Formats: sequence, C-alpha cells, structure tokens
Amino acid sequence: MDNTFIRALDLKFPIIQAPMAGGATTSALVSAVSNQGALGMIGAGYLKPDDLRHQIKQVKSETNASFGVNLFVPEHYEIKEEQIEKSKRLIETYELLLNQQVGEPSLPNRETEMCIYEELIQVVLDENVPVCSFTFGIPSKETIQTFKRQGVFTIGTATNVSEAIAVESLGMDAVVVQGSEAGGHRGNFLCDSNESMIGLIALVPQVVDQVDIPVIAAGGIMDGRGLSSALCLGAEAVQMGTAFLTCKESGAHPVHQQAILLAKSEDIVTTKAFSGKDARGIENQFMKEMKEHEAVLPPFPVQNALTQNLRKLASQQKNPEFMSLWSGQGPTLAREETVEQLINRVANEAALILDRIRL
Amino acid sequence: MDNTFIRALDLKFPIIQAPMAGGATTSALVSAVSNQGALGMIGAGYLKPDDLRHQIKQVKSETNASFGVNLFVPEHYEIKEEQIEKSKRLIETYELLLNQQVGEPSLPNRETEMCIYEELIQVVLDENVPVCSFTFGIPSKETIQTFKRQGVFTIGTATNVSEAIAVESLGMDAVVVQGSEAGGHRGNFLCDSNESMIGLIALVPQVVDQVDIPVIAAGGIMDGRGLSSALCLGAEAVQMGTAFLTCKESGAHPVHQQAILLAKSEDIVTTKAFSGKDARGIENQFMKEMKEHEAVLPPFPVQNALTQNLRKLASQQKNPEFMSLWSGQGPTLAREETVEQLINRVANEAALILDRIRL
Repeated sequence: MDNTFIRALDLKFPIIQAPMAGGATTSALVSAVSNQGALGMIGAGYLKPDDLRHQIKQVKSETNASFGVNLFVPEHYEIKEEQIEKSKRLIETYELLLNQQVGEPSLPNRETEMCIYEELIQVVLDENVPVCSFTFGIPSKETIQTFKRQGVFTIGTATNVSEAIAVESLGMDAVVVQGSEAGGHRGNFLCDSNESMIGLIALVPQVVDQVDIPVIAAGGIMDGRGLSSALCLGAEAVQMGTAFLTCKESGAHPVHQQAILLAKSEDIVTTKAFSGKDARGIENQFMKEMKEHEAVLPPFPVQNALTQNLRKLASQQKNPEFMSLWSGQGPTLAREETVEQLINRVANEAALILDRIRL
Repeated sequence: MDNTFIRALDLKFPIIQAPMAGGATTSALVSAVSNQGALGMIGAGYLKPDDLRHQIKQVKSETNASFGVNLFVPEHYEIKEEQIEKSKRLIETYELLLNQQVGEPSLPNRETEMCIYEELIQVVLDENVPVCSFTFGIPSKETIQTFKRQGVFTIGTATNVSEAIAVESLGMDAVVVQGSEAGGHRGNFLCDSNESMIGLIALVPQVVDQVDIPVIAAGGIMDGRGLSSALCLGAEAVQMGTAFLTCKESGAHPVHQQAILLAKSEDIVTTKAFSGKDARGIENQFMKEMKEHEAVLPPFPVQNALTQNLRKLASQQKNPEFMSLWSGQGPTLAREETVEQLINRVANEAALILDRIRL
C-alpha cells in the first residue's frame, strides 16, 4: 500500500494523536506518541503564545520525531447582550450550587483573538514545528503559503465533502475527516453541524472520491478494528482522541478519564452548553438541564468564556456534573494503559485483521 | 475467516439486501439478489397477509436460494386527539397545494395491527420462508420459539449495545446493527432515537464485544470499501439498502431513485414528519417546513397513516417535495445498475482491498 502520508512525515504507524485543546495534550503525551512512531499533536487552541513556545521546546527536548500543533481558526460571531445576560444568570445558579462566589467572566474580543492566532502561527514558524493542523475553519491562503515555504506539513479539518474540497483547494497537504462519531468540538465551517453529522463509513469513501490529498479518518476509532476499517475505507491514517485521553501520559482530569472508562456509548451526546459550539461528550447534569436553552446561548467562544469559572470549580471539586467530559462514541473500548501499549496494541491488532480477513 | 452467517444460509456473499418496506423490495429485486448469492429480503412492514403470501410464492418461483421476510413489531403508542387534529390541518394545506380534495384518512388501530402481525407471522411459517427479521422492537419469546422449531433463521435489529444484548437474550440467530448512517426508519426500541445515533465504526466493535451471535452491519455501506471495512470491524455481513434502491430491479419510484443519484451527503437528514418515527432521507420542502412541528406530531404509525394520501398524491404527480425520499448517508456512491453488477462490483472491490491493504 502506497501511503504518502506516513512517508511524508517519516512515521512508523498511520496514527495521529488528536490535538485535544484544554490540557490533555501534555508534552509527556505528545512526545510519547511521537517516540512510538505515531504523530503527537499539541492542542494549542486555548494556549497563549508563550505557553505554546514553552511546550514546543519541551516536546523537542523529549523527542526527535515529527510532531505537530493544532490551531483554532478564529470565527466570526455576533455578540448579543441579552443572550450573554441570560446565559450568565443560568451559569450563576450552578456556580452557587458549587458554593462559590461568582466573579465577572472576561469576555473574548475578536481583535485580541486574531492577534493571538497570528502570534501562535509565528511561534509554530519560529520553532520549526514539522506539522500544523487547523480546525473550526480554514486559514488564509497567505498563511498556508508561508507554512509551505517553510516546509511545514499543513492539515485541515473537514466534516463533509464540501469542506474537504475547500481544504484541498487551499493547497493544504492532508485533510482530517471528522465523522459524527468524534468526541469534542465539531469542526464544521461551511454548513451547520446537523448537516455534517455523517458517519465515517459513509463519509470517508465519499471524500476520498473527491480529493487527491491524503484523508485522515477521525471519530470513534479506538482499536485495531477501527484502524483497519478506516484504511479499507480509503483513509491513509486515523486520528484518535478518546483512546489517548485515558492513557497514563494524558493530561486529562482523572475524573474525566474515569467517566470515559465507565461510560456506555448511549451516554455520549452532543451539546452546545459548555462552549456555544456543538461538541460530543458524556451527558451530565449541566448538559441535560441546559438542553432547552441551547438555541439562545451565545456562540463560541463567548459561551466558552462564560462557563470557564464553572468548569474550573467543578474540576477542583472533582464534580463530573459540571465538567466538559468530551468523548467519542466508543468509550467502552477505552483502556487505562501507556501510550506505548495503546499504539502497539492498535497496530498489531490492525495488522492481524488485515492479514486474516478475506472475502 | 470463519463466517457462521454465510454458512448457515448457504450464501456466496456476506450481503443482505435491506428489507425496505413501501414497495422497493419487489419480487424481481429479492429474487435477483438471492440468485446472485446474497440474501434478498421482502420488506413486509406495510403488507397485508395475502399480499405477502403472493409475493413469497412469486419469489419462490424465481429462485431456489435463501431469502427472507422482515416484519415490523407493533409498538405501544398513545393517541392524542389534539395532536391528530393539528397534524391533519398541517397536512391538508399540502394536499391542497397539490390541488387535491382531501379524503378522511383511516387511522390505525393497535388491535387490528396485532392481528395482521400474527397473520404475517403465520404466512412466513406456512410458506417455510428460510429467514425472518424483525425491526421496531423484538418479538415475543413464544414467536421466536415457534420460528426456531421450524428452523427459520431469525434476525433482530438493534441500534445500540443494549438492544443487541436484548436480541441475543431472546435467542435470535443474528443481529443487524443499524448505524446512524442508515437510511429509512430508525430501529431503536429500548432508548430514544438520539441515544442511538451511533456511527458504525464505533458501534460494531462495541456490539461484537458484547454478543456472541453474528453481527450484521447496516448503514451507509455502498461499495467494497464499506463491506471490507465492516468485516474488519468484526461484522460477519452487511445489510445494504440505498445501494439496492437505485438498481434496475428495485421497485422504488423513479423520482426517488433520481433524487438519490443527485443527492449529496449533506442533503440527508432525519425527520419525524412522514411517519411520526425518526427516519433518514433527502431533505425536501415537507421535511423542512414540518421541522418546527415535530415535537407535537402523533407517533408512528398514526402520522404515517395521516400522510399516506399526501405521499400517494406526490408520487402520482412525480413531486419529490412531498415524497419520503429515504436514503442513507452515502448517496454519492449510488449507481444505476443491475443487482448482478452491484453485487459483483461490491464483492470484487472488497476482495481486492482485503488482498492489498497491509499495515
């Protein structure tokens, strides 16, 4: 099999560790993945430029292999005062439930966000990071050209065929195709998230037929069955998130890890409650009770800023009912193990399946 | 590979033609599929006992190979007069749009439905049909025991792990696992349809780990990539619906077939508008405009009876905006071809993929 993706990045395995923003992708996780011959990714979506620079240096000190950074492309959004006020009042009741005096949240500002985004890009360039992926949209043509001139391998994220075509048209080197199975935030940017809830078994072949760049399948892939099946669909690699969240090297909160290890796939739903953007995770009290208000919540990243205190409080108090417990649809396949064990298990199982199964 | 499913039914290929109720599964389609070494299925959900008997005899005259019948298990539902009146008024406006005098629809009656269901079971037994599958629920233990005594191979339908376990516990011989990608009606019966919108790549391995009976993957599988990938996930066979809808032998309305051949995967959404039960199809005017009323529509099969005139009118007038254009999430992979061409193409492609792809 001619796999341009793993050749381009000199990987041993066609596996990317999903760049989960919010603390899970510690340097220990990223470097352990890269040292095993898969691709470790720093989820830099919520990082400050200096913190990203620090983490990149840390990863470089721990591995000589390829690794990457993922950035959120800032989106346009409208601020409506009445939405913000309503959402604040709702969130306050939960903060009080956790017995905490409520502080005024600091709201995001698009200009500042754009500045930070540009600075993060500069850090990736300065530090000669081999791979940069983007989600929540596509970067400008100029940004891609700058990356290409410096030899950075760029990856876009798409949730349907049109978005994958947009990623390829921009000149990016590969596309992560996010199936409806995926945990965490939806990466849709050309359509609403309902129009892009497409299962990988249907989505991957349809994308592969329309683009020439390598397709990376993401969503619900937890073991060698998922990896081998994605390769049969025409993907050149898989991106796995939830499977890495429960690894010993992951920076995910132990409460989050335990919640995944105990969850059933029926418990995993989508919600806008935590961030204003659809994301998939384990249903809890906050998600259930906020469901009826979803239509009037402020958009991402405003709602995300508004729930920040609550999520922090809940984490400190180890209270899963108010934490964002992101997970894909395959939680019963998650295990507590090291990155080395996970990658070897997945790769060996996939190799065995592909050796054995015949029609 | 030890495939107990294809051995048990003496099939050449691990492919079932989905039993699509409503006219698509003509005797010509079913017998063509079985004659090719796959499993043809009569969708008998809306058939009267005499019509089923007639169709079974017809199929028997056209093939000596295994084939099957699918039955809807009647559900409990509540009739609320105000829901029915509201829905009638909504549907009337569309009937008037199609310039047709509105007749009073005949409403379903659970007692009659149960009688018909029992009669359909008797027809399957009388006619010695080799395979019987069930959807929208599970039959009684007595029914399964009767079938087993006569050597009928029974198949249940599940949309999550709990439902698959329920199917196995009842003593059925195999389970169709319906992924969120699937076209037509959702087969959920132990949970609501949102909790069971799980993509196959995540769902199949989780079910395979929990049941010992053969798992059949259904939803969005359109070609050899889908078939080979389902086998890697641990399924012993696939059930394909949309791919057979556009075959020359299919009884689907030509307007429906053309709509599939022209659709993009982003056009495929779920709706309760046509039947009161969630189903996946190509979005049209009726689905869009009824969206806001979905929460107050009568349940299946009441809403299905109420929209019957409208759907019939629309079919006669070849108006796709008011027909139920069921489709899975892979419409761009559909082709106009014969059953023989489809089955051979899918099987050859899957064999090639499984020969070629290595890790």
